[in-house]
Amino acid sequence: MKNYLIHENWTIKEEGFHPEWNEITESIMSLGNGRMGQRGNFEEGYSGKTLPGNYVAGVYFPDKTRVGWWKNGYPNYFAKVINAANWIGIGITVGDEVLDLAGCQILAFERTLNMKEGWLSRSCEAILPSGRRIHIHSQRFCSLTHDEGGAIRFSVTPLDFSDKITFFPYIDGTISNRDANYDQKFWEETDRETSFAEGCLQLRTIPNPYGVPQFEVATAQHFELLRDGKSIEFQALPVKQEKFVGSKIVLEATEGTELTLIKYACNLSDLNHPKEELSDRAKAYVRQLAAIGYDDLLDGQIAAWEAKWAQMDIAIEGDIAAQQGIRFNLFQLSQTYTGEDDRLNIGPKGFTGEKYGGVTYWDTEAYCIPFYLSTADRHVARNLLVYRWKQLGKAIENAGKLGFTGGAALYPMVTMNGEECHNEWEITFEEIHRNGAIAYAIYDYVRYTGDTSYLGEHGFEVLLAISRFWSQRITWSGERKKYVMLGVTGPNEYENNVNNNWYTSYIACWCLRYTLEVAEYLKSVEPGRYDSLREQLLLAEDAEFARFKDILDNMFLPYSEELGVILQQDGYLDKEQILVQELPAVDRPLNQKWSWDRILRSCFIKQADVLQGLYFFEDEFDEETIRKNFEFYEPRTVHESSLSPCVHAILASRLGLHEKAYEMYLRTSRLDLDDYNNDTEDGLHITSMAGTWMSVVKGFGGLRVKNHQLHLSPTCPVQWSAYSFNVRFRENLLKVRVTAEGTVVDNHQGPEFTVWVDGQPRLIPAA
Amino acid sequence: MKNYLIHENWTIKEEGFHPEWNEITESIMSLGNGRMGQRGNFEEGYSGKTLPGNYVAGVYFPDKTRVGWWKNGYPNYFAKVINAANWIGIGITVGDEVLDLAGCQILAFERTLNMKEGWLSRSCEAILPSGRRIHIHSQRFCSLTHDEGGAIRFSVTPLDFSDKITFFPYIDGTISNRDANYDQKFWEETDRETSFAEGCLQLRTIPNPYGVPQFEVATAQHFELLRDGKSIEFQALPVKQEKFVGSKIVLEATEGTELTLIKYACNLSDLNHPKEELSDRAKAYVRQLAAIGYDDLLDGQIAAWEAKWAQMDIAIEGDIAAQQGIRFNLFQLSQTYTGEDDRLNIGPKGFTGEKYGGVTYWDTEAYCIPFYLSTADRHVARNLLVYRWKQLGKAIENAGKLGFTGGAALYPMVTMNGEECHNEWEITFEEIHRNGAIAYAIYDYVRYTGDTSYLGEHGFEVLLAISRFWSQRITWSGERKKYVMLGVTGPNEYENNVNNNWYTSYIACWCLRYTLEVAEYLKSVEPGRYDSLREQLLLAEDAEFARFKDILDNMFLPYSEELGVILQQDGYLDKEQILVQELPAVDRPLNQKWSWDRILRSCFIKQADVLQGLYFFEDEFDEETIRKNFEFYEPRTVHESSLSPCVHAILASRLGLHEKAYEMYLRTSRLDLDDYNNDTEDGLHITSMAGTWMSVVKGFGGLRVKNHQLHLSPTCPVQWSAYSFNVRFRENLLKVRVTAEGTVVDNHQGPEFTVWVDGQPRLIPAA
Repeated sequence: MKNYLIHENWTIKEEGFHPEWNEITESIMSLGNGRMGQRGNFEEGYSGKTLPGNYVAGVYFPDKTRVGWWKNGYPNYFAKVINAANWIGIGITVGDEVLDLAGCQILAFERTLNMKEGWLSRSCEAILPSGRRIHIHSQRFCSLTHDEGGAIRFSVTPLDFSDKITFFPYIDGTISNRDANYDQKFWEETDRETSFAEGCLQLRTIPNPYGVPQFEVATAQHFELLRDGKSIEFQALPVKQEKFVGSKIVLEATEGTELTLIKYACNLSDLNHPKEELSDRAKAYVRQLAAIGYDDLLDGQIAAWEAKWAQMDIAIEGDIAAQQGIRFNLFQLSQTYTGEDDRLNIGPKGFTGEKYGGVTYWDTEAYCIPFYLSTADRHVARNLLVYRWKQLGKAIENAGKLGFTGGAALYPMVTMNGEECHNEWEITFEEIHRNGAIAYAIYDYVRYTGDTSYLGEHGFEVLLAISRFWSQRITWSGERKKYVMLGVTGPNEYENNVNNNWYTSYIACWCLRYTLEVAEYLKSVEPGRYDSLREQLLLAEDAEFARFKDILDNMFLPYSEELGVILQQDGYLDKEQILVQELPAVDRPLNQKWSWDRILRSCFIKQADVLQGLYFFEDEFDEETIRKNFEFYEPRTVHESSLSPCVHAILASRLGLHEKAYEMYLRTSRLDLDDYNNDTEDGLHITSMAGTWMSVVKGFGGLRVKNHQLHLSPTCPVQWSAYSFNVRFRENLLKVRVTAEGTVVDNHQGPEFTVWVDGQPRLIPAA
Repeated sequence: MKNYLIHENWTIKEEGFHPEWNEITESIMSLGNGRMGQRGNFEEGYSGKTLPGNYVAGVYFPDKTRVGWWKNGYPNYFAKVINAANWIGIGITVGDEVLDLAGCQILAFERTLNMKEGWLSRSCEAILPSGRRIHIHSQRFCSLTHDEGGAIRFSVTPLDFSDKITFFPYIDGTISNRDANYDQKFWEETDRETSFAEGCLQLRTIPNPYGVPQFEVATAQHFELLRDGKSIEFQALPVKQEKFVGSKIVLEATEGTELTLIKYACNLSDLNHPKEELSDRAKAYVRQLAAIGYDDLLDGQIAAWEAKWAQMDIAIEGDIAAQQGIRFNLFQLSQTYTGEDDRLNIGPKGFTGEKYGGVTYWDTEAYCIPFYLSTADRHVARNLLVYRWKQLGKAIENAGKLGFTGGAALYPMVTMNGEECHNEWEITFEEIHRNGAIAYAIYDYVRYTGDTSYLGEHGFEVLLAISRFWSQRITWSGERKKYVMLGVTGPNEYENNVNNNWYTSYIACWCLRYTLEVAEYLKSVEPGRYDSLREQLLLAEDAEFARFKDILDNMFLPYSEELGVILQQDGYLDKEQILVQELPAVDRPLNQKWSWDRILRSCFIKQADVLQGLYFFEDEFDEETIRKNFEFYEPRTVHESSLSPCVHAILASRLGLHEKAYEMYLRTSRLDLDDYNNDTEDGLHITSMAGTWMSVVKGFGGLRVKNHQLHLSPTCPVQWSAYSFNVRFRENLLKVRVTAEGTVVDNHQGPEFTVWVDGQPRLIPAA
């Protein structure tokens, strides 16, 4: 755990350079606009600890799977987000000295991420190895208004000398992934061009044997120079090498005079443009950015972020660390995914690192969709659903590999293009509850938005395929005379290959039930569409639905009569029952201190499992049941997944366990800012950031939707004087402010509106 | 399945060259002498399909572990047998043509493995690309009498021309392993020398970061030349390159005249010689072989094999294929392990290939020790036990990594030096029944040999450490009010991470029981030694033994009252119960046709599991129990491990199911000769060969030891007219001949002797 960043409401600030933690700071100071993004690297390069990282959404490479021991059914490749051309590069040479902060004495340093306005800046005064003093200042952003581009303003001022200064703006495609299974570089060059004040590099992912398309990306730059803020004429010497373009501009620098390079850049990929027009369009794109100009682009950026904050902000009064933490999470989530492209999803590291590979986990459905439902237009969440619908064919193929038939679908644990990208049998083949979350998200979307049209358009197709999977995966036990689900890994990955994991069995049954309900609904409301779906999906309604119903009537769900609690799985009570508080501190975190064997055999829970189910299906259980299970499982849970505490926070709030709720909230809110798990240098925990939002809005705020109406049951943590959050619900944009004294709900947009606060209806006038 | 090898009693013969199956033939025609060995490669080299393979026992490299996803507790490296310098090399150039059968037209070809005498020969008449006809003949062996050396006699005769012929005997250390996790070459050179008619190459394994010693091996050659069988003078031109030494001898060859090179070679390793003397000793060694001369060495070889066969032969009358199959198995087993060095063990591929790595599996204890007990002096089996005793410290360390304490030992699943070499958590951490087999082998040895001295010397130490492991690994279930063993993979690897695998739980309890018995025995018979052991092992007798007894009194062992059968594990009957005969042929073998997921969830059994326990502990179960369980489990077993059918064959014989016994016997006896599993090209299935011996001697012959006496209950398969086997038992060497009419037992060595045949004592006179 670290605490070197300044606590402020709207910024993340590093005062004084911390080279030892530079990779952490780079992760935290990442920028993105949903389409592209990059880590908070130095423009001029840096020979110290750094992970240069630039990423283009939707562009990946199918890296050949690496395993110790192959198992039938494993995927051939592992699609990973790849480090793309570095477009922020601006080399600086002062006289003959290459500027590299690693070799300088640093007199003053500040790096600031402005979350309100969406930019990153750096000011630094340094003494070069020769003893000469300079000042540098940079500011950059990935544009929300022109989301294939970005701009940088980089200034150098000689403070105690005059000499030549060389600016060397470049695009560098010689990068490689830190994580590459077979140490390959994933890019090859297809084109490079330079002309005055411009350059364009076109790269293509190397060939692969899996039939995955080779992506092509053109990265262009356009630049201009200023002296003391005034545009100047200059000569640019082009530099072209394999996978590299740049231009050198040598200027006379006078003591005290600021020289500035403004660089406009863009990444255009063949996901969005014809291959043959990529470089022409890229060059046109940067010229257009230049025509708009840096200041106007920045103004546009600020306005776009203002609009975003209006929808999603959470303000916490009386606790700056908490305020900064929540805004940081909202900011990074919004940078990662904007919801404008249904081929994209929310990578666990966003544009902040390259660990894990793949971009889509069940995190999207279970944690992120609720956030986007409440903070963005409904088409954003809908696009996330459509993403899965588009991958249904692959999910059916995937289930086929495992031996399932008849249109059964198993969505992958991790994916980019619908193909499974994970290869541990106990996860890939067994952590199948992900199918349930994907169905649940459809329910959640329809419940929140009221958009029932989605069911007939796409939803039923996905639901039926998932239910078909469950109806085959669930088998009859002659011994128990019940249906069982064998060989499953639940959300608690600290147990593998167990029988009758309650969460998985319950959500599977819920899927069958919901599929039947949706079928009934469509049959009555959209009979024509239903008939054609039935035909198209070869649905043998009588037989298939009878099987669903038989499973629903006869499913085994483990329960302890003696303890009055749901059992996580068949054998859970055979384990030695020890509580987390009895564990010596030196044994934590278990995943670093204990062998995998010991973890598996212990009763300790990585993340909410039974409680995840009680959270999803809260309305189907009475408070006493939720309380008993919370009291049983919470003390056994080590929360070694960043996705765990939020569910506990929500349930604790629901049960009035306010101290526990706040404790759980704290575990996520500053996870990355304080490098809680010692892994922020690899990138941020993007998807779990949605959990922090959930902890506040669904936890402390008690937001629920029932019968098409919004319900709140807010409490204010005693550590705060007040908090407020913005929430969209259907036609309204509300601002909810909660203090110990009560809750105020304002309507910022939309018609008159009834909200339920603590069970009482409250009429809110039109905005 | 292939059938291209000639069926003969004492030889394996390939008539006509089969280049497409050359790697299979190379595996089958492997030679070894326990200390070194090699595949049946061509001396002159071959550019077609070939896996050149030379191996030196005990020499390995710790290859860095490769995994998809690391788990705490995995070993850092995977020790693998490595392909060593190729010492059989004899390049042949005729005029300017390099002899390579891949480019020749082959007129006649025969490759013969003589199992009776222990040598490999090849005769070939071929037309060179130039159209000229030659005849070649080679014979070679790895010497049993000089077990660091071998010799080759290689002749070439020009049949229709006269020209220069160049012989190029060499030692080539530039080889690499086909299986290397990170594509490294594992050898570096430390010395190379040539002198007249000699060469020596000294190699060392490359450095490793694990503290594993770098092995050093000197490989030397010495050669002489003959014309028409008469020694001749010659000039030799030395050739030295990095990791390569050789000598070129150019001779004038006249049509019809046979030119012969005799090559003596040796591999001396620093396991047996001081590093600094390696090359001197190697040169002396080959000179000594040369002084003995090829013919006398060969005579010694034949005599040594004759002595081996006298102890172990099984003769089958009326079925040449079966006869050849069993002798092939006995031959290969004997080539792999001679029992003279307690640092060596029996690799699954012996000296016939490099797959799997490691040399020691539980196969040694469960399958090989019974073979060596009955066919070799008792020190051979004893050395195999001592091997494990020597590795006890590592086994305790290994258990420590997993969190076990107080001298608990977990022997590795696969090992070379005591360090675990496997990295699948479900095997490495969970297939812990191997500990039981290691304890059982001590019991088996003492029962067979009567050598109770072993218990005090080494046995108790190992037994206590194993029992300490079980007593921690077994935990109390508050739910069941019984001791349970959670998270186990039994011998049936088609189930992973199950609870209460009956076999594992049973053998664990048996270990505890046997440890207590041995403690009692030592206390009464060797009280002094017992006291010092108790002290040395920090044995808290009261507490530890009380825990053992409590477990024995309260262990949960799964059983179905309804079916009257033992349950393989807790959840076995929750699985859909389908029989193997109901499986479509197209689905077999499951491990190639089904996803791992589907296999795990099925009821199909890879290899004997409950039945393995009933075989080990036959005396503790009545015949009815064995029959019921056999009838339940056998139809569910797919025998996709080569170790499975023998256990079934023995139990089937025991139950009088003679047809089933013969069916099971057939599945192993020609596994490699007929390439039953399409994998013989990777090397032979050495350890499972002991299972074939068991099927005949313990199965059809019904050999058991009870109360220090030998029992037989022989039946003769109807497919055979008779069979006989040699068996050593304590001071006697017996020959047992079985026909439909009855059983004759002859005493070939040792005093008067009582053997029980079909429950009746029979007095056999002294030899």
